[in-house]
Amino acid sequence: MALILASSSPIRRAMLMQSGLEFESIPAAVDEKSERHRHDCAQSLATALAQAKAVAVSEMHSGDWVIGSDSVVTSDGRIFAKPDDIEEAADHLRFFSGKPMRLTSAVALARGGAVEWSHCDSATLQVRPLSDAFIAAYLDAEWPEVGYCVGVFRLEGRGVQLFETIDGSYFTILGMPLVPLLGALRQRGAIAA
Amino acid sequence: MALILASSSPIRRAMLMQSGLEFESIPAAVDEKSERHRHDCAQSLATALAQAKAVAVSEMHSGDWVIGSDSVVTSDGRIFAKPDDIEEAADHLRFFSGKPMRLTSAVALARGGAVEWSHCDSATLQVRPLSDAFIAAYLDAEWPEVGYCVGVFRLEGRGVQLFETIDGSYFTILGMPLVPLLGALRQRGAIAA
Repeated sequence: MALILASSSPIRRAMLMQSGLEFESIPAAVDEKSERHRHDCAQSLATALAQAKAVAVSEMHSGDWVIGSDSVVTSDGRIFAKPDDIEEAADHLRFFSGKPMRLTSAVALARGGAVEWSHCDSATLQVRPLSDAFIAAYLDAEWPEVGYCVGVFRLEGRGVQLFETIDGSYFTILGMPLVPLLGALRQRGAIAA
Repeated sequence: MALILASSSPIRRAMLMQSGLEFESIPAAVDEKSERHRHDCAQSLATALAQAKAVAVSEMHSGDWVIGSDSVVTSDGRIFAKPDDIEEAADHLRFFSGKPMRLTSAVALARGGAVEWSHCDSATLQVRPLSDAFIAAYLDAEWPEVGYCVGVFRLEGRGVQLFETIDGSYFTILGMPLVPLLGALRQRGAIAA
């Protein structure tokens, strides 16, 4: 019985690898856009996407444990997707400037094509007022890497400079609530206790 | 006017580098052992050590901003220092097993030989019950790297497997409250806003 991460996200892969787990990565084919239209809150959307990814891969690998995960950024009631290009990234940062940003991450565990467990957690990051000059210098240093991040920042990079305060779990902010996931895997005998 | 980190800690250096700061590292000569005897609470000890390190280097580089930082781990009322060898590391882990661990990190900013600002923050990590077999396998994978860590864990490594829950700032757990430090540096014009 193997462990599979239903994602090609480099950051989620790194999180699992660094924690010492052995697993395989298989990207899930999930229509994120159509799912987005069916949910009007971040928790519901992130959980549905995490579960859909885990189930999609689990259906083809029914004897294995499959991890699915997703993150959603909200600011001022609006749900944000990853920016398509550097101009849109700058637009998002100008919108985030001076406002609290909410990062919601969900993780799900599936086996035999069914969801066995899932967990959702949010963190709040207060964005400081960002000048156009700061945004330009920031994207000059951080693009294209931050193009893969819904909040247009990597907390393990210069992204930490965007915030006045950060409240919440680091792993939730990175994109996957790792500590609850490890607990769920241990409880099911999927990893050593 | 330059920025100096009064520390040779690889993790603190990495934190500042990753956030995009330019700085120099100069280890401070501070007698940590004698300081430990003068404080009976973690906040007071961590703050005193952070300030002492910043001031010691600042006295020789009076025109620069100097950052000092220190971390203290407490469990069941006892203050822990870094383990001297792998046997002591295993002893510490057996002591931590099943108990809440408190990690307290302080950071100070000095100029002209005087403390200009300091900040202290704590995080609580609930250690799960750890079997001797787990501790042996863990140290086999993580020693000697965790010998530099007061809590005998690297959260960015297998250390995340030690905990049931983690409450508090990631940067505080890594060893330096980075977000408040960046705010203090910006406020003083020591880094770009």
